[in-house]
Amino acid sequence: MTTYVSMSSAELADVHADLKARYEKLKSAGLKLDLTRGKPSPEQLDLSNELLSLPGDGDFRAADGTDTRNYGGLAGLAELRAIFGELLDIPADNLVAQNNASLEIMYRLVTFAALHGTVDGDAPWPTDGTSTFLCPAPGYDRHFAITESLGFDMIPVPINPDGPDVAVVKRLVADDPTIKGLWAVPKFSNPTGAVYSAEVTRELVSMPTAAKDFRLFWDDAYAVHPLEGDAPASHDILSMARDAGHPNRPYVFASTSKITFAGAGVSFFGASTENLMWYARHNAITSIGPDKVNQLRHVRFFGDADGVRAHMRRHRELLAPKFRRVLEILEDRLGGPKVASWTEPKGGYFISVDVLDGTAARTVELAADAGIALTAAGSTFPLRRDPHDRNIRLAPSFPGLSELETAMDGFATCVLLASAEKLLRH
Amino acid sequence: MTTYVSMSSAELADVHADLKARYEKLKSAGLKLDLTRGKPSPEQLDLSNELLSLPGDGDFRAADGTDTRNYGGLAGLAELRAIFGELLDIPADNLVAQNNASLEIMYRLVTFAALHGTVDGDAPWPTDGTSTFLCPAPGYDRHFAITESLGFDMIPVPINPDGPDVAVVKRLVADDPTIKGLWAVPKFSNPTGAVYSAEVTRELVSMPTAAKDFRLFWDDAYAVHPLEGDAPASHDILSMARDAGHPNRPYVFASTSKITFAGAGVSFFGASTENLMWYARHNAITSIGPDKVNQLRHVRFFGDADGVRAHMRRHRELLAPKFRRVLEILEDRLGGPKVASWTEPKGGYFISVDVLDGTAARTVELAADAGIALTAAGSTFPLRRDPHDRNIRLAPSFPGLSELETAMDGFATCVLLASAEKLLRH
Repeated sequence: MTTYVSMSSAELADVHADLKARYEKLKSAGLKLDLTRGKPSPEQLDLSNELLSLPGDGDFRAADGTDTRNYGGLAGLAELRAIFGELLDIPADNLVAQNNASLEIMYRLVTFAALHGTVDGDAPWPTDGTSTFLCPAPGYDRHFAITESLGFDMIPVPINPDGPDVAVVKRLVADDPTIKGLWAVPKFSNPTGAVYSAEVTRELVSMPTAAKDFRLFWDDAYAVHPLEGDAPASHDILSMARDAGHPNRPYVFASTSKITFAGAGVSFFGASTENLMWYARHNAITSIGPDKVNQLRHVRFFGDADGVRAHMRRHRELLAPKFRRVLEILEDRLGGPKVASWTEPKGGYFISVDVLDGTAARTVELAADAGIALTAAGSTFPLRRDPHDRNIRLAPSFPGLSELETAMDGFATCVLLASAEKLLRH
Repeated sequence: MTTYVSMSSAELADVHADLKARYEKLKSAGLKLDLTRGKPSPEQLDLSNELLSLPGDGDFRAADGTDTRNYGGLAGLAELRAIFGELLDIPADNLVAQNNASLEIMYRLVTFAALHGTVDGDAPWPTDGTSTFLCPAPGYDRHFAITESLGFDMIPVPINPDGPDVAVVKRLVADDPTIKGLWAVPKFSNPTGAVYSAEVTRELVSMPTAAKDFRLFWDDAYAVHPLEGDAPASHDILSMARDAGHPNRPYVFASTSKITFAGAGVSFFGASTENLMWYARHNAITSIGPDKVNQLRHVRFFGDADGVRAHMRRHRELLAPKFRRVLEILEDRLGGPKVASWTEPKGGYFISVDVLDGTAARTVELAADAGIALTAAGSTFPLRRDPHDRNIRLAPSFPGLSELETAMDGFATCVLLASAEKLLRH
């Protein structure tokens, strides 16, 4: 097939007319499909339905005898921390288990730093626009929203398949003491599927930073979420950071939001002992402790780390065919015209599509008018500003396979139409 | 019996010698008893054990069809809000249901105000020591800890059986624009058992305040927790405030921490629509939504508001005998010597004891040395500073009846000994 850019104006006009007709037909189908967010499908949630009647009648004691029903235990159940400590390569003593959202822990950490300062900083992090976060982009919109809401400046950093562009990061943090942190999704990154290499990780924990209390917000959200085979091991980042002389630099996060129930899981925060003591001190003011019954429920459900791994293979069986089908449709419809490129993730929840510069917003608009909801163009960049207006995040997990095919075919039509429109204007 | 203050020095010396001997015997008993916190007893927690296997196999849909297992629904389940809206006299639309701690909501509200400002204030609440909260005292230590941690100044206000001394409150708020809020436990107040009257409530929502965005932090923690008969109805404070022209003044809180499982319950926040929209906007940055499965679990367990009321009668049956016994022992041991006064609460979780001025810390110290843990003296005042060193909070809920009797008898001995010590010094 001829690529669009190599077509004559007349050829392109014909293609455009065909696409326009195809798009009008798509619109008339009255679809109502949603590819916006990385939500587990009902079939995935069904995998954890045992939780609906766990821990079970009369079962409320943790291994150490704690009555999980009562107050207390701000660090969470030791046996749950042991299971996820093994999976995340973090000693259970350096991991706390919290409520249903690691996002809340991240938000707390930034606000605690803004209100009280960190363990090794000179002063609280200002919220007057003079604090900065580095944002590997395309990245996760909810991360960027936290620092945006607190008035932080955000600098996008290019992301490669092995992590953020370290040369750029190193140059920025070396000179600018207002740069307090970097948002990272180290495994199967949202949305590009990047997997941070050991080398990149080592550079990030080792690099000199002008800020004394620079932090890696290390959101290992997809630690055990492969789409093929088993997930690569998580890097032992706490040890790496300690060995590099920056023990307090990493804040590690994880949750079971995409393991058990998205809205009713448990979350984790891993860090140096000094960081955890600081967190505990401030967290004790806001919290009566996490829901330990829900933590016990998860312990009973998983049994051990191998139980989690086996469970994630069942998720993989449900997710992999959807991702395969999306990639097939992208290749089938967009491969010839060469108006887009996309990632082929080995895990996680997203496919990142780069369309022709200046056509992402138009593509999303066309899709919306045809009843196909996509994540808003720009969402994957700080302040929702994609400098090239080209990145679109696809979330194939929630719809059924046939709905997904319909949505993706419609999406491809919208990409092609937006591309033809653009090229005709030039 | 002769009162201690009317005794001669010689009589007092005899009494002191007797008490000293009795105290040494108490110490040698090697007790390990705890009256520090308002924790439900295991028997109380057992009342809710059905929750351990609810909502049950295959049951995960809310009344409106929501899959409670997945993401979303930041306001919480409508049917749960309806049940507690009836109990709190708040329209379900003005009530959101959250995770396991209303304390977290309170903390969020103060930090949101500090970081972003409120809906009707001119600027964010400063955290540099120039914001002030009024603290009816004796009051709840965890309330005071929130404003302390955020650098607020705190002014203690006397509390009467029908609520805080309104004349004092009105005078303070009228002139001082730095006074941003008042901590309140309007029913069966922690620790005095005060029940705010309709008159006091009306004054608090009506009074002119120098701060445009003054807030009542209205923690209705013991809304349905009577020790005799039924609980009085909660005041319809949102309507009262609206009618008084201050619709945004009340922030209302409640939770099931002392209804179902202390660590694994659900919490509530009631406020004007404008306040709730403001909360939702900021809360959306930190939260993926509350644990809706746990909310559904509670809906299934209670059924309706009458289900909650019936459940609370079962709590009452377990709690009332403990409170009765504590009051009997106080009267029996301290009534004659007249060295202490105490509250006789009709609900809630505490008995507030005032000992002779200057003897509370010594009493707590004596008890600790005898293996009886009491809430630290001063805890019921902002910054833990009881100006008279006389208030002690007793929490009779957790121990069994016979342990409680032992602890209370020991406590009485410590009060008497500390009193005799003091009077002998004068």
